[in-house]
Amino acid sequence: MPVNFATPAADALYPVAGVRLGLAEAGIRKVDRRDLTLLSLDPGCTVAGVFTQNRFCAAPVQLCRSHLDSGSEIRALVINTGIANAGTGGAGLAAARQTCAALGELLGVAADQVLPFSTGVILEALPVDRLIAGLPRCIDDLAADHWHAAAHAIMTTDTVAKAASRRVQINGKRVTITGISKGAGMIRPNMATMLGFVATDAGIAEPLLRELVREAADESFNCITVDGDTSTNDSFIVIATGQSGAQFSDAQAPGYAALREAVIGVALELAQAIIRDGEGATKFITIAVEGGRDRAECKRVGYAIGHSPLVKTAFFASDPNLGRILCAIGYADIDALDVDKVRVWLSSRGDEVLVAEKGGRAASYREEDGVRIMQSSEITVRVDLGRGAASGTVYSCDFSYDYVKINADYRS
Amino acid sequence: MPVNFATPAADALYPVAGVRLGLAEAGIRKVDRRDLTLLSLDPGCTVAGVFTQNRFCAAPVQLCRSHLDSGSEIRALVINTGIANAGTGGAGLAAARQTCAALGELLGVAADQVLPFSTGVILEALPVDRLIAGLPRCIDDLAADHWHAAAHAIMTTDTVAKAASRRVQINGKRVTITGISKGAGMIRPNMATMLGFVATDAGIAEPLLRELVREAADESFNCITVDGDTSTNDSFIVIATGQSGAQFSDAQAPGYAALREAVIGVALELAQAIIRDGEGATKFITIAVEGGRDRAECKRVGYAIGHSPLVKTAFFASDPNLGRILCAIGYADIDALDVDKVRVWLSSRGDEVLVAEKGGRAASYREEDGVRIMQSSEITVRVDLGRGAASGTVYSCDFSYDYVKINADYRS
Repeated sequence: MPVNFATPAADALYPVAGVRLGLAEAGIRKVDRRDLTLLSLDPGCTVAGVFTQNRFCAAPVQLCRSHLDSGSEIRALVINTGIANAGTGGAGLAAARQTCAALGELLGVAADQVLPFSTGVILEALPVDRLIAGLPRCIDDLAADHWHAAAHAIMTTDTVAKAASRRVQINGKRVTITGISKGAGMIRPNMATMLGFVATDAGIAEPLLRELVREAADESFNCITVDGDTSTNDSFIVIATGQSGAQFSDAQAPGYAALREAVIGVALELAQAIIRDGEGATKFITIAVEGGRDRAECKRVGYAIGHSPLVKTAFFASDPNLGRILCAIGYADIDALDVDKVRVWLSSRGDEVLVAEKGGRAASYREEDGVRIMQSSEITVRVDLGRGAASGTVYSCDFSYDYVKINADYRS
Repeated sequence: MPVNFATPAADALYPVAGVRLGLAEAGIRKVDRRDLTLLSLDPGCTVAGVFTQNRFCAAPVQLCRSHLDSGSEIRALVINTGIANAGTGGAGLAAARQTCAALGELLGVAADQVLPFSTGVILEALPVDRLIAGLPRCIDDLAADHWHAAAHAIMTTDTVAKAASRRVQINGKRVTITGISKGAGMIRPNMATMLGFVATDAGIAEPLLRELVREAADESFNCITVDGDTSTNDSFIVIATGQSGAQFSDAQAPGYAALREAVIGVALELAQAIIRDGEGATKFITIAVEGGRDRAECKRVGYAIGHSPLVKTAFFASDPNLGRILCAIGYADIDALDVDKVRVWLSSRGDEVLVAEKGGRAASYREEDGVRIMQSSEITVRVDLGRGAASGTVYSCDFSYDYVKINADYRS
């Protein structure tokens, strides 16, 4: 059960002019399951992406990077679930290439105009023949209003489909932004999440889009952790079709700030949905760190707290075990941290309590206040490092029996 | 239940001439439990230690550092369990100072000749009056053969007392090395473990002893992880009494290599015992990384595998989920790693299987071989990075329901 998140209804996911989606059952790993998703893009779109930093990056990630770098106009994205096509060596790369070539042929575009994505089990061979056999059915299924179905088709251990959508008025045009994501475990993206796709019918010139995808990842998918494991397949893509008529080629253009905010907002909703659906999660934890010398050290503290199995099990138990939080701050490797200046608050829905200051428990802190807040399903840990003006936020979840159960059982 | 470890019998822990141990029930946090331990050292001992790198280091750790730096001859160590005296600010430091002063007065030595240690819950105030009231009973109890009782007295969430002892002939003298340790959770020492104490009746000049304690920590307590949490109280101490008559003042002296090996051997046994008793552990995992450019990158890979909750739950499930291991190698931040050169083996008690090479699963690998090895309670993951001659080993354990249970219940 996700923490305070439900998939938006199909009609709350606005189509994005220029993008059509088609699904098929390809039998990649399971039968009777739509596991193949095609996004077909009209001519004239710009596309940019960020990808995992994992050295064992999956074959499709390698191809995505290469196709985006080639400068070819991207016309299609193809996503399979079930098999990650990672740790599959030369054969895996060949399978991803075959996929792009086959889809290119069917759509009448070049292979390097296709971006491939895979998610699922690592080290298993991709059944590329079955995948390719499913492509014509995806094409037959193409429609602008299949975002809801696509959000379901890309799920693996996810318990809910993740999608977000909004419409904003920009420069007199109605601009739509719609996105989907997937992921629940192996989540500590270092560039992007398992998979996230956001499309807008605004037009965004490619250099600006490349900047935007990085900014959006930095504010969303690069702020989340379930278990600290950076996946081999993390990919986050932003597509700009331009069909709304709103066009942007530089960051100072009127209206761009509103568009940027809306795109980042959708990305953040999608990233947070992954945490809310984190494997075994019962609580959604925001770790807001301020007063740092730079954003990097704030996020380091956020991740130290957000990764700590001891902190996460304490959240699961609704136990305000503040010592574990201070301990994690202490090992976040912050140079010359003056612990006497560190302050920590716990809060939930506006109910905020100072819990630690001057190197220890706050004099005003009462255990029952901590217990009350820890019982909430939405908890914020606010940390003031007391040494600067920078801030950074990390989103995490608790660590329950079910995390172990899910990950001990997965695959078997 | 620890994995293949039992506390040595009392008579297998050889006394170390020059060291006497006394225990008492001080009621620090629980009643009817010996929770106060005194090590009294004869004049003429040398003592060196390494301590946690956690910025929120506990008050006793601060005092230990200062007393060791003062050059005063250390004559006593006092250890309380129940309360860590960490995150306790100025009051905590005052409590640790009071403890040293009171014990110094009772023993007729200066306060800075006493090293204090605390372990237990963080952020709670140390009941220093009860502690001090227990000190005379510790003194009354002093005896050379109380190592076994001391190993029990320093336990917190440990399920077994941890101790190791050996005798070696060096330069015609019989030299004894005996040690105790504690710890089961919040274990990812970065200098030393929760608490580890090793004493020898060899004489070791202080500069050489300082080098030895660092080397021994680096080969033992700095190679283990249960949950990746570096505690606030980690301390590892080596005491050299000199009463065997074997004396060393430089590393090239005849016989020193044998002594060094024996001290490191005892430290490694104590460190491994902590992993074998890791919270909820059912398996002991050795991660031996070779072929690295330097030891640091080998240990980084070892820790990435040893920390990964996904790898640890797969071990718990006896599931040879090799993809999770490759994934962890991939995010260990090894610059310009050529994944095609990485090879991975799984083994247990001499039964070794090549599982991955050339960026993916080894052609010769059969799943039943992986399953057979994963069912063992002692598993080695051997990784060859294929880029140098350095190596490094990390010891870890699996991640079970009981880890969550123990840490969700602890304190409540």
